[in-house]
Amino acid sequence: MKGIVLIMDGLGDRPLEELGNKTPLQAAKTPNLDKMAKRGLNGIMDSIKPGVRPGSDTAHISILGYDPYEVYTGRGPFEACGVGVDVYPGDIAFRCNFSTVNDDFIVTDRRAGRIRDETSSIIAKLNEMKIDGYEDVEIVFKESTGHRAVLVLRGNGLSDKVSDADPKVEGKSPKTVIAMDKSTEAKKTADLLNKIVKESYNLIKHHPINLKRIKNNEPPANVIIPRGAGAVPDVESLNDKYGLNSACIAETGLIMGIARFAGMKIIEVEGATGGVDTNLDNIINTIMDNVLNSDYDFFLINIDGADEAGHDGNVYEKLEFIEKVDEVVVSKLLTLENTVIILTADHSTPISVMDHSGDPVPIMINGPDLRIDDVYEFNEIAATKGGLLRIRGSDVMDIILDYMGKSPKFGA
Amino acid sequence: MKGIVLIMDGLGDRPLEELGNKTPLQAAKTPNLDKMAKRGLNGIMDSIKPGVRPGSDTAHISILGYDPYEVYTGRGPFEACGVGVDVYPGDIAFRCNFSTVNDDFIVTDRRAGRIRDETSSIIAKLNEMKIDGYEDVEIVFKESTGHRAVLVLRGNGLSDKVSDADPKVEGKSPKTVIAMDKSTEAKKTADLLNKIVKESYNLIKHHPINLKRIKNNEPPANVIIPRGAGAVPDVESLNDKYGLNSACIAETGLIMGIARFAGMKIIEVEGATGGVDTNLDNIINTIMDNVLNSDYDFFLINIDGADEAGHDGNVYEKLEFIEKVDEVVVSKLLTLENTVIILTADHSTPISVMDHSGDPVPIMINGPDLRIDDVYEFNEIAATKGGLLRIRGSDVMDIILDYMGKSPKFGA
Repeated sequence: MKGIVLIMDGLGDRPLEELGNKTPLQAAKTPNLDKMAKRGLNGIMDSIKPGVRPGSDTAHISILGYDPYEVYTGRGPFEACGVGVDVYPGDIAFRCNFSTVNDDFIVTDRRAGRIRDETSSIIAKLNEMKIDGYEDVEIVFKESTGHRAVLVLRGNGLSDKVSDADPKVEGKSPKTVIAMDKSTEAKKTADLLNKIVKESYNLIKHHPINLKRIKNNEPPANVIIPRGAGAVPDVESLNDKYGLNSACIAETGLIMGIARFAGMKIIEVEGATGGVDTNLDNIINTIMDNVLNSDYDFFLINIDGADEAGHDGNVYEKLEFIEKVDEVVVSKLLTLENTVIILTADHSTPISVMDHSGDPVPIMINGPDLRIDDVYEFNEIAATKGGLLRIRGSDVMDIILDYMGKSPKFGA
Repeated sequence: MKGIVLIMDGLGDRPLEELGNKTPLQAAKTPNLDKMAKRGLNGIMDSIKPGVRPGSDTAHISILGYDPYEVYTGRGPFEACGVGVDVYPGDIAFRCNFSTVNDDFIVTDRRAGRIRDETSSIIAKLNEMKIDGYEDVEIVFKESTGHRAVLVLRGNGLSDKVSDADPKVEGKSPKTVIAMDKSTEAKKTADLLNKIVKESYNLIKHHPINLKRIKNNEPPANVIIPRGAGAVPDVESLNDKYGLNSACIAETGLIMGIARFAGMKIIEVEGATGGVDTNLDNIINTIMDNVLNSDYDFFLINIDGADEAGHDGNVYEKLEFIEKVDEVVVSKLLTLENTVIILTADHSTPISVMDHSGDPVPIMINGPDLRIDDVYEFNEIAATKGGLLRIRGSDVMDIILDYMGKSPKFGA
């Protein structure tokens, strides 16, 4: 028996006047999702707890059975995982921007002219960095998308209790990083970071890419500005914790980072953009191929488009994307046998809010040997009448493992 | 967007034969509450957890987003807040009775003849108290209603792990207070309390009020007997915790104490008695005036009459009071725009129990942008079919802040 948790990112919504007081999911034509509802067990889920507005990261952490209040120390570690840096418990990780500073070290462009696809050779230069007095600390940079990058510090006596260097506005110098508590670890880390920011400018201001950008009248990516410090938590891998051989099929670095952090294998999909223009055919083909032909027995799948449309406040884009997922992805999932499928969202991203909200999301389970209820549609309203009632993200792994016949008995 | 949490104290009940097996709330004619249910989101709530019989204090603590198991150290601190003593973390607070003792220091009347409205000058005398060897401890008395008072001890090295002085029956001396653990703090506090009880007799036995009472053949209030020790917990104020400017409109010292403890402003209402005879016109006028014209953005409102009728086991008083609140208060609330209203109870006070029970209470939310459900009546039974399903008191603040657009996102 295999298991799939499919997350339609940001799927949940609120009723909209332009849809006759229906949510996009209610208004969309979704014969395959409705078929799943009809043959399954339905309910609503708070991925963290009722009313709490989850990030996609904290929601997925919770759904994978980890406590986000313990594990989520900051975004840095998950970004680092997401771009493929191997991080270890105790590492301190940061999100970074490449920015542009002038000769007076004033930030003139926080995003270095939104530089794209050229940062890897600048990163290579940054990775040569040595800071006097900190020879014991390993300094690892890695490029992310666009002007984004991550920084990982590895060594003894470091702390994530340090402030951001990001000045948040242009026209100011990068902020001096300060210790947020009185520990020598925080003081050391803050001092090191301040030196890293300065040294990054020395190392890359004359980098060939930057000289070319200056010649082309583009802002050079001549400094790196870290923020969002987080200590990499020490957690048991999903496979060890639940006795699984798990894989993740996701579109965004953020979700891949969570999966990597949980020790899951990442299966990349060509043409997966994380937007409504993503290649759903490639996504479902990758899913079907791996469910049917690989040794993986558990899959976390994240499809991101509905969340993007929600953030954009684009109701018809959200509705149409849901219909496309229904047609291209869900129709094929319906053919799987010997598989427990949980289909839900990580959070609501209502069109009216254009951001995540604390509303619960619909959730449904398909598979053999379930207590089928009388819900015939998959949406936020119908789901409240289902047999699952109201559960939490932290219940999902226990439930799917039980239906997969893989959960240990607690007690005798 | 403003927010209101309106608590109808003790509203929940159980079906009664004399009401055709309906609860008082089911049997009452409540067109306005039903209208709120119809246009809102409904459910049931356990203010602490299913089956737990909450006090009004612990229920309100939970509903305000604090953990009563952490914060509720005893009733003393909340009583002290309730009567307007400014308490600080670490203070040890007690509820006290004025009692009558005879020359042999035997309690002859635990409530000093239910003395009323004369205790403030006796309290003034008690506040002159100095105890030899305890000059470093500040001793603060404050009158409450009737024979009730509070005592606050402030200083280093004190503890709330001490027993009550209240002998519970007449014909005995006040109990010797003993330390409940082996700490020197508890020993010190117990010793101090024993001296305070003795010294209170010396200070007030010949107080003019008492001489007058003796002359009138009334039992003098000639000793003070503390009980219910609690250390004032160190909590973040509601305003700091949630970014609010909050106020409380309540009728009883107990609820005002909780609100003051949470750092809320108290808005007093003339004629608010906490009984079924309370001035509901004044209450709703105060609510409307403050919601419409003040800078407060969040209100905790408590209307107490249903609880009183429940404790008295008076079914028709409870039913009629509910109808009066519906007519006078809820009708006006329905006119508010740009306001999220959560209307619920802190606990059930069933007529058949004449005390609080662990039954969940109905809860409903009104406001813009909600997933309206198909519940058309407000009562304990209909509420179980609503879209909120079953939530907890500790979810209330997160949910209302989310609908008010005031909650931070946890994660990215």
